[in-house]
Amino acid sequence: MLKKTPRTAPRVKADRVDFDETAAYAILDEALCCHVGFICDGSPMVIPTIPWRVGDQLYFHGSHGSRLAKVMASGQSLCVTTTLVDGLVLARSAFHHSMNYRSVVLFGQAREVDDDAEKARAFDALVDKIVPGRRPHVRPPNARELAATKLLVLTIDEGSVKMRQGPPIDSEDDLSWPVWAGVLPLALTAAAPVSDDHVPAGVTNGKPGITADERPPSLL
Amino acid sequence: MLKKTPRTAPRVKADRVDFDETAAYAILDEALCCHVGFICDGSPMVIPTIPWRVGDQLYFHGSHGSRLAKVMASGQSLCVTTTLVDGLVLARSAFHHSMNYRSVVLFGQAREVDDDAEKARAFDALVDKIVPGRRPHVRPPNARELAATKLLVLTIDEGSVKMRQGPPIDSEDDLSWPVWAGVLPLALTAAAPVSDDHVPAGVTNGKPGITADERPPSLL
Repeated sequence: MLKKTPRTAPRVKADRVDFDETAAYAILDEALCCHVGFICDGSPMVIPTIPWRVGDQLYFHGSHGSRLAKVMASGQSLCVTTTLVDGLVLARSAFHHSMNYRSVVLFGQAREVDDDAEKARAFDALVDKIVPGRRPHVRPPNARELAATKLLVLTIDEGSVKMRQGPPIDSEDDLSWPVWAGVLPLALTAAAPVSDDHVPAGVTNGKPGITADERPPSLL
Repeated sequence: MLKKTPRTAPRVKADRVDFDETAAYAILDEALCCHVGFICDGSPMVIPTIPWRVGDQLYFHGSHGSRLAKVMASGQSLCVTTTLVDGLVLARSAFHHSMNYRSVVLFGQAREVDDDAEKARAFDALVDKIVPGRRPHVRPPNARELAATKLLVLTIDEGSVKMRQGPPIDSEDDLSWPVWAGVLPLALTAAAPVSDDHVPAGVTNGKPGITADERPPSLL
């Protein structure tokens, strides 16, 4: 279970909140973007980045000069929020319109990972998250590239999950209002991959949506 | 132009940053979710919510008890970050993998809107954003509902836009690596609308994707 604290306890709509870490993991694994909040020169600052997870460890990366990497590595308190939009909830009254979503809010302090072996494993996990099956095909990072990237990690511990799913909840009085009502499902969806200008004809290794069975035999 | 200040000036990858408010407006108009960062009891906190825009005014709403609504109404400094994920950038080297995205970071202080006429107009604009053309069909908010919702507004002024678009940028040495490379385009995409259990047969007023021409004549 995620740790419930004054800052993770719900103030409103407590029925939408839980502390199940499995639910949190599923959201973090699906998300390609999270928003990291921190305090910089007294001001709140929120920066988007891709999170990825190995067990209860949530990884982030950045180039050495970036604000995000510097602040995260400084060990200051962070809030990492990840939101997936699942649909528009279209009620009969303007007031009861809503959104279906799943979100995780995590608090904690990141630490910088310096160990080369842990860095290599973590960056492998990032490529595995982005396109499963692609990693064995790409050129692995060399020592200079590993050194150029700051790797940061937060233990998933204090936080909460909040979600809304399902149809609109209209007042009984509004049910006869002559308007369509329901949910417009939304999802982040991939279109067909667009090759860059340097892919030789027939090369499909590591292409999203191409499994080993679908590859031309000469390239297996 | 958005106002450039020490906190909006880029530290790295300055070529991805600009201050054009038209670009910021387009991102804010497309986004169904933004992340609001603030300081609560000394801790950074990041909460997702839907933003909507009228001119240079960015609106937010919340129920009266929520942390977000309370903090925003208190006039404290906020950071509002909005990110649209446009694609996975799949390079030949693990290191040059990236993401196509468009994001806006805004700073400022929100004010609470108390005026009933401005509240009514702003909530109309929210329904218009969610499903254009739907609003005339729904039951408008009544006085009790308007009073139950806190409306907050931030002037779009200090901020910056950051984006990456286009194919991977591989090292010359890697171009012959035998792996597919390019972009996997991603977009938040709607599936077919799902009616709730109370929609009478044939009612399509305000249904997403249904224009006036497509409605059954009896319902026009």
